[in-house]
Amino acid sequence: MNRVDFRVQPADYRHWRLSIDGPVATLSMDVDEAGGLVPGYELKLNSYDLGVDIELYDAVQRLRFEHPEVRTVVVTSAKDKIFCAGANIRMLAAADHAWKVNFCKFTNETRNGMEDASAHSGQTYLAAVNGTASGGGYELALACEHIMLVDDRSSTVSLPELPLLGVLPGTGGLTRIVDKRHVRRDLADYFATRAEGVPGKKAAQWRLVDEVVPRSKWAETVAARALDKAGAAKTKDAKGIELTPLEKARSAGSIEYTHIKATLGDGKADITVQAPEGEPGLALLPLVRELDDLILDLRTNEPELGTWVLRTEGDPALILAHDAWLLEHRDDWLANEIVLYLKRTLKRLDVTSRSLIALIEPGSCFAGSLFELALAADRSYHLIDDDATVTVGPMNLGPLPMGNGLTRLQSRFWGDADSLNDVERTYRGQEAEAKGLVTFAPDDIDWDDEVRIAIEERASFSPDALTGLEANYRFVGPETIETKIFGRLTAWQNWIFYRPNASGPDGALRRFGTGQRADFDRKRV
Amino acid sequence: MNRVDFRVQPADYRHWRLSIDGPVATLSMDVDEAGGLVPGYELKLNSYDLGVDIELYDAVQRLRFEHPEVRTVVVTSAKDKIFCAGANIRMLAAADHAWKVNFCKFTNETRNGMEDASAHSGQTYLAAVNGTASGGGYELALACEHIMLVDDRSSTVSLPELPLLGVLPGTGGLTRIVDKRHVRRDLADYFATRAEGVPGKKAAQWRLVDEVVPRSKWAETVAARALDKAGAAKTKDAKGIELTPLEKARSAGSIEYTHIKATLGDGKADITVQAPEGEPGLALLPLVRELDDLILDLRTNEPELGTWVLRTEGDPALILAHDAWLLEHRDDWLANEIVLYLKRTLKRLDVTSRSLIALIEPGSCFAGSLFELALAADRSYHLIDDDATVTVGPMNLGPLPMGNGLTRLQSRFWGDADSLNDVERTYRGQEAEAKGLVTFAPDDIDWDDEVRIAIEERASFSPDALTGLEANYRFVGPETIETKIFGRLTAWQNWIFYRPNASGPDGALRRFGTGQRADFDRKRV
Repeated sequence: MNRVDFRVQPADYRHWRLSIDGPVATLSMDVDEAGGLVPGYELKLNSYDLGVDIELYDAVQRLRFEHPEVRTVVVTSAKDKIFCAGANIRMLAAADHAWKVNFCKFTNETRNGMEDASAHSGQTYLAAVNGTASGGGYELALACEHIMLVDDRSSTVSLPELPLLGVLPGTGGLTRIVDKRHVRRDLADYFATRAEGVPGKKAAQWRLVDEVVPRSKWAETVAARALDKAGAAKTKDAKGIELTPLEKARSAGSIEYTHIKATLGDGKADITVQAPEGEPGLALLPLVRELDDLILDLRTNEPELGTWVLRTEGDPALILAHDAWLLEHRDDWLANEIVLYLKRTLKRLDVTSRSLIALIEPGSCFAGSLFELALAADRSYHLIDDDATVTVGPMNLGPLPMGNGLTRLQSRFWGDADSLNDVERTYRGQEAEAKGLVTFAPDDIDWDDEVRIAIEERASFSPDALTGLEANYRFVGPETIETKIFGRLTAWQNWIFYRPNASGPDGALRRFGTGQRADFDRKRV
Repeated sequence: MNRVDFRVQPADYRHWRLSIDGPVATLSMDVDEAGGLVPGYELKLNSYDLGVDIELYDAVQRLRFEHPEVRTVVVTSAKDKIFCAGANIRMLAAADHAWKVNFCKFTNETRNGMEDASAHSGQTYLAAVNGTASGGGYELALACEHIMLVDDRSSTVSLPELPLLGVLPGTGGLTRIVDKRHVRRDLADYFATRAEGVPGKKAAQWRLVDEVVPRSKWAETVAARALDKAGAAKTKDAKGIELTPLEKARSAGSIEYTHIKATLGDGKADITVQAPEGEPGLALLPLVRELDDLILDLRTNEPELGTWVLRTEGDPALILAHDAWLLEHRDDWLANEIVLYLKRTLKRLDVTSRSLIALIEPGSCFAGSLFELALAADRSYHLIDDDATVTVGPMNLGPLPMGNGLTRLQSRFWGDADSLNDVERTYRGQEAEAKGLVTFAPDDIDWDDEVRIAIEERASFSPDALTGLEANYRFVGPETIETKIFGRLTAWQNWIFYRPNASGPDGALRRFGTGQRADFDRKRV
């Protein structure tokens, strides 16, 4: 298969239409049946694959940066009687395990990003469910803050995955129903076993949707609700900036952007992030975009590179100056968006199923926002050398929380609040190790061997066990809807996806649409 | 294979020695190599299988009921230089997936029970690690409140599962290290990749153990620490009661105790719990013991019975009177223990991978503590009939929290606190449905069909998807170490256990001890 490219722009969208009318944007799903990312399936009934979701992600990002004046985003369908049928089942049935899991992760991140926009960017998502929303289609609506369902005697919301496919709704549905929308769990249980779903009034009564609107009043009610939500959000007069195409050179052995370079091979990716010159604060935006694209590219296209080695290059003072400018101008929409984007991108790193090892060497700039890369890593090695330092700055103390709601420093020192006292300064290797900010601080005699062994050894372990280990360690302390989705729900789904009852030749996922029922091993595990 | 019997008594222990000296009990692990529960492996180096853990569970229970005077329980080894090597690897390698998962669940519950005794029964567990503790052996120590490690230049603590077996430590180790003991996650990462473990001083420095004691001072220091902890706990003068052998008639088609009867067949277990007459409060103890044994029996021996249908029979007033007596005498150690045991047993139900359906019919007694059975169920059906009621009593409002720290009612009405107002009273079907206390309240015309269809339909779904669905819905809201262990850690472990990298013919678990290295699919998922 060709490599998947996550770079796209509205002019090239095949599956979505984005229109903007003052403070209200409308994102209409209109999936091109013939537009599947890989051959072998047709995207009927507004079902989606990774390609459809890449466009959705792009649209959500562009709305934030290019259209800050937008205060409500209406997600709806351009097709008749169908809102969205969820992930394409033939695509899922044919995809290998790693592809399915990675696909679910990305779609989850995109939906979390919609919620982040509602919560932090003053762009409230509203689902105008103008036809049946099933499976991932209803889960897309669940990521919106308000769900309107058309009342036309045929449209329903449903999660038919369990009865029809023998898998879970994989995009946060189970978690959002009970934890976000507070649907009672026994009703939620019933709901998730009804392939045909629940229609209007009952859906509203059970809180599966917020309101039900007759078709005759649909357009005007959606418009009115969108304006309502727009009025509630804070006004932004600013004009947006364009997210210009990302420059990138990609080969089998390397990925090169302006600020980030990665060398690929030997089971690992060696990633070097360079401190950007340029306009204070704003110069971080291209770097974040590159990091975002790099993570997505490596996760999707290079599953055999199990370890990512993270390095930085440049002047720490430059990073700290960018950080200071951004935090000083946090009231400015653009500065705010850059910080939020950095937050989301670092969260992507946290849920990446690769071992992350940070190397802190002379000439590196692990300071402030870039020190988060080392804090996100599973381990960090800090060479004892006067020119190799790490710096804790204000960006490490709040603006970039993880999915669990804690900063990476708070997560690191969970249950040990004293270590957070007077933490904000610059450290050389031994000091950083003593303070607990890095894992090990070898001297130059030990450095090469110690780092080499750590990387080689990592490559010798079971990739699955590493994925499980990292997923458990990275999120200590409190849980949120986000960590539940990535920690608990995803882990169960991975297991279910892998079992013959779903993916075996007689499993429900493989037999769907054949007219034959699945043949289950009835043993409960 | 023969059915596993969970009933055991100290005189029959093959693997543990329990001795009591005033306020200090010593539980010495001395596993009989030839005493495996099933043929095919030797329990070398104090490694354990389900049979060993059944005895441990029995000992922990008896300490609470038969020896309330005990205030410290020292867990140690009777073998030289080895504390415990964890779960037996040949047993794991040969066991089928369902067995492995069920085994891990039971061992987890036993270790949670030790923590519950430390927290709520004034019996503090102390690990006297007098030799190497690896894998499940170290996890056993992690379930104690204080870990002492002998300093003898050879004893270490370790979690070698990942490097040696390609699986996770499956008994809460990863969660307890970071969430309970607050070991920094990068050190925890390093630790879990060192097959040889970490010795004394470093283990203490990283908080993997609480103290390191030279062999020359070992016995006296352990004794002193045990007395310290005993002094800190509240004194109990009472004499214990004997847990007499449980009467039980077991056949392929039924399980009968004094108060509980279960009929097995058609993919389900029909369970009827009868309100016990007898001494106020105390009469609940035999019932709880029976319920506990029933859950363990069905989970282990009847994996194909995917649905448990829960009924009760008797006078609701009787249950409410037992409850009232227990809560009135909560200061009494025995009343307290009965409530705690009921709490733990209901928690076992919560983490049981079977669909639970409660049927509320005329003559039933879903009141107070027995109403918890309906609240634990995935769904409840309440026949509209004057003689079919449910009653919310004080026992539903606090004393029986779930693993997430909430009562089942709080979990049910998560995000909807109003529904908890004025909830304490008796309800007929329609009222209970309106209040949200039951799922559906059919009348007698619909009852038979509706219940039959619900049960038949459940049996038609993928057992794996049901397990995942239930595990996600049952625990809304906050997470605790317990829910993380059963929700997140277990789900990842299930997946890892099932993957060829662990359990395939070339996987690490199967190849362990053969001299051949595992052959991994290197793709990260």
